[in-house]
Amino acid sequence: MRLKFVPGAHEAIEASEMVLKDLETYRGNFKSVFKNEFPIHIEIGMGKGSFIIEMAKRNPNINFIGIEKYDSVLIRALEKIEEDIPNLRFIRMDATSIDQIFYKEIDVIYLNFSDPWPKTKHAHRRLSSPIFLKRYDTLFKDKKEIIMKTDNRKLFEYSLISFNEYGYHFEEISLDLYNDDIGDNVATEYETKFHNLGFPIYKIKISK
Amino acid sequence: MRLKFVPGAHEAIEASEMVLKDLETYRGNFKSVFKNEFPIHIEIGMGKGSFIIEMAKRNPNINFIGIEKYDSVLIRALEKIEEDIPNLRFIRMDATSIDQIFYKEIDVIYLNFSDPWPKTKHAHRRLSSPIFLKRYDTLFKDKKEIIMKTDNRKLFEYSLISFNEYGYHFEEISLDLYNDDIGDNVATEYETKFHNLGFPIYKIKISK
Repeated sequence: MRLKFVPGAHEAIEASEMVLKDLETYRGNFKSVFKNEFPIHIEIGMGKGSFIIEMAKRNPNINFIGIEKYDSVLIRALEKIEEDIPNLRFIRMDATSIDQIFYKEIDVIYLNFSDPWPKTKHAHRRLSSPIFLKRYDTLFKDKKEIIMKTDNRKLFEYSLISFNEYGYHFEEISLDLYNDDIGDNVATEYETKFHNLGFPIYKIKISK
Repeated sequence: MRLKFVPGAHEAIEASEMVLKDLETYRGNFKSVFKNEFPIHIEIGMGKGSFIIEMAKRNPNINFIGIEKYDSVLIRALEKIEEDIPNLRFIRMDATSIDQIFYKEIDVIYLNFSDPWPKTKHAHRRLSSPIFLKRYDTLFKDKKEIIMKTDNRKLFEYSLISFNEYGYHFEEISLDLYNDDIGDNVATEYETKFHNLGFPIYKIKISK
């Protein structure tokens, strides 16, 4: 994603009640944010937030936390929130320290159109790399479940190998999502753009 | 593949020294066919044989056995053989009994553009189904290795799930072979046809 400086983004994020701060106080107890026992789904690298905002609206009995590294991107998600969405919160952070934030409380991780980090020397930065899969292990409450979508063929090929190697069970795969029955699919900004350009969208749901 | 009756095919196959008969005499000892210790690779469902004939010509230090169910298709492979290829033989048989033919002597299995059997009730007939993977287990000499190519997306999705579930290690995957460095790829008749029609060709190499 191209990044540009957005004046006031940092201040707006600091001021927003949608964006969680003092994260260490929630560790292992993020349900206290939502004050209920509903499952918690997180999206790592939520970008401008279309996906997770729509997911939260459609699924009031699931709590959603969107994670984004950049102020200038997270602010775009905040700008989309017109009414209170009680089952949605955001965190501004780098995903590399995600295992220090959550502890045995997440039900599903979404990885949507993640940065492919095409150079081999950057493979460890891919959100489906073994080093990230290891970080995710302690986030999950019980059953581990990851749902990934991407238009990037090389990233998807890499991820299939990585998930298989890490012992994940493949529940569902689509190598051309828009030529399947996409049912209740919620598209991200990227997804709509790349699908409209004629690229196949890849999806996998895995569990362990 | 569309099948038609080819007059004389059965007789020509019976008469050909390229086509192995009395298979039970070779079980566990197919190397005696080739009179050497080179690895043995088999293609299950070789169709008209372009792939395995070219592979045999390019790789004189590997023995190849092509397996095809139908006389009318196998005869087309025989017709392509213009000179003796000492490291190539054919077998006319149905793949369902393959575990009764070979025993601890195969190094690699090729599955090229196999019948997708699209109906769920026929899934057990797919050459990458768990029932076939189990049949393959006792064919292999030591390390198990399967290399599969197909243009059929649904078959490939199914196969990824099946291979993962059966505990195979994914060594290489391409979701668009002709947009990768295909190196020494040998194309089948189907492959060339479907690639030319613009379909992506999927490939996976797995081992256990």
